[in-house]
Amino acid sequence: MYGAGDVRVETVPDARVIEPTDALVNITRACICGSDLWPYKSMEPSETGRRMGHEFIGLVEAVGPEVRTVRKGDLVVAPFAWSDGTCVFCREGLQTSCLHGGWWGGTELDGGQGEAVRVPQADGTLVVLPVGKDDALMPSLLTLSDVMGTGHHAALAANVGPGKSVAVVGDGAVGLCGVIAARRLGAEQIIILGRHADRIALARDFGATDVVSERGDEAVERVKELTGGLGAHSVLECVGYEQSTLTALSIARPGGAVGRVGVPQDASIPAAQPSFFNNVTIAGGPAPVRAYIEELLPDVLEGRIEPGRVFDRVTDIEGVPDGYRAMDERESIKVMIQF
Amino acid sequence: MYGAGDVRVETVPDARVIEPTDALVNITRACICGSDLWPYKSMEPSETGRRMGHEFIGLVEAVGPEVRTVRKGDLVVAPFAWSDGTCVFCREGLQTSCLHGGWWGGTELDGGQGEAVRVPQADGTLVVLPVGKDDALMPSLLTLSDVMGTGHHAALAANVGPGKSVAVVGDGAVGLCGVIAARRLGAEQIIILGRHADRIALARDFGATDVVSERGDEAVERVKELTGGLGAHSVLECVGYEQSTLTALSIARPGGAVGRVGVPQDASIPAAQPSFFNNVTIAGGPAPVRAYIEELLPDVLEGRIEPGRVFDRVTDIEGVPDGYRAMDERESIKVMIQF
Repeated sequence: MYGAGDVRVETVPDARVIEPTDALVNITRACICGSDLWPYKSMEPSETGRRMGHEFIGLVEAVGPEVRTVRKGDLVVAPFAWSDGTCVFCREGLQTSCLHGGWWGGTELDGGQGEAVRVPQADGTLVVLPVGKDDALMPSLLTLSDVMGTGHHAALAANVGPGKSVAVVGDGAVGLCGVIAARRLGAEQIIILGRHADRIALARDFGATDVVSERGDEAVERVKELTGGLGAHSVLECVGYEQSTLTALSIARPGGAVGRVGVPQDASIPAAQPSFFNNVTIAGGPAPVRAYIEELLPDVLEGRIEPGRVFDRVTDIEGVPDGYRAMDERESIKVMIQF
Repeated sequence: MYGAGDVRVETVPDARVIEPTDALVNITRACICGSDLWPYKSMEPSETGRRMGHEFIGLVEAVGPEVRTVRKGDLVVAPFAWSDGTCVFCREGLQTSCLHGGWWGGTELDGGQGEAVRVPQADGTLVVLPVGKDDALMPSLLTLSDVMGTGHHAALAANVGPGKSVAVVGDGAVGLCGVIAARRLGAEQIIILGRHADRIALARDFGATDVVSERGDEAVERVKELTGGLGAHSVLECVGYEQSTLTALSIARPGGAVGRVGVPQDASIPAAQPSFFNNVTIAGGPAPVRAYIEELLPDVLEGRIEPGRVFDRVTDIEGVPDGYRAMDERESIKVMIQF
């Protein structure tokens, strides 16, 4: 990406193993993330550009001499942040704060929207998948790299549990996966805030019990009505704007929690009302997806959850720029890239 | 209080039972709260003034016909908010969000800094104390009306537990009670951020293991050093300023939690750094002190905790205006009013 709206498909130097803990992975499936749309909307023009993509599945082509848990030929899924798996935060299950980890793409590292990628800390980062590279489950498995784990993180941060009322702010792929996660964790009522017919239909399929298409104060009012005037026990903030965060805080019941996973695009959240005086907990952040892959993988493999249904478009590498456009214009929920 | 710095002792109409669920309480002990200092610093001049005080112990003088759990002659402690004890939030232990509750003082209700007070929802609000009105434990029992329960709430909201590192931002009475609470809940390391020699000495007596007297970035640096470079698992924000909140968020370890009980005095807290990217949870609000009185009372009665030591000055009702001045100038930690 060279600037807002400027995504180019280019040939770059081949990815290769550099560190002894690296793996080289040839990508078979990747995708475009809602968070990729933030720079797509606002990135300053850049001479050097920035590698994009942080969600991928691929075949291990080579490993460094210190890599122990993956080998050439393995099909692997990578979380959206790489991590060593051994530091204090990785051991606590917060791999996105790994002391020796980092993020794909940028100017230093390969991005996931490409043919191959050097994977640092391969042992800590990659998870081997027990299926073939063209398995029908591939879309759902690919969501374990980000959106399904992120929706799950939002639900955990919002203390979703059996019998709870849950509201999901945002009908993008993460919000839709948040619905799946809320249902999986036993929520009794799941309210999705959104207005696009196709997304709402999918949310209902995933377990949403109510739809709120209003916005702002009217949305707050409507959620209150649907929750006996009290608000929702758990709110999943899956957007990241100041307005959506304020809506999320406003529809949480006193003593409830907002699990936020939308990357904040604005400076601040209100300190006092409604979060402080209602004792509403604000939790969440970048999801430690690596921790959740193993937890969610059996449910995907056994078909109990189908997060891959968030992909409504498939393209090859040449179609990536148009995929950004389609997602930005909300013509597509999420675009899968097939190699 | 008639405006900033303008506290007057005046004769008002006698408090009396109005509703059948009311009790009339003759106050024996009360106190001035750190939160009373916010209007003391900034209140606009008012013609009618505002009754002050929300922490008191007293003798029940009369009860309405529907009151069942307290009777004339009982010595009772009141939490800083009144509540019915039966609504959905009271049953969940969040009495500060009681659907039929409210706050002392203002222009409608009596305040606790006076000779007598009408207590609405007496059954839900008051807790009978099994001691005489001049018992030596009176100061510690009085803290159950607010500061000890508030420190405890901060500690719970910050997920304090055995083996955890805890940082307490604020060396006022609530911060000091937060130290007591953190120790009581098993914290291994308790860092107090403060610089007043007498308060620090008391904090050490209460269980603080480390003192950080720096402020701003230097304080953040110092707490990081004391916690192996990582930050504290649990941070108690017991002030309420934007700067103290930012400090609290900055010294929390990734995946940690900030329990905030300082009433926010500023508009906002930063949405992204450091809370979002570090997955730091922000929790807390007005403490449901009513829920904690029963939990903490045995520890006070048996002398395991001595929160009453935060009182370093006693006055009669005439000395209340000077008590405000002394607390505002940080000459006194907390002032007890004896009737």
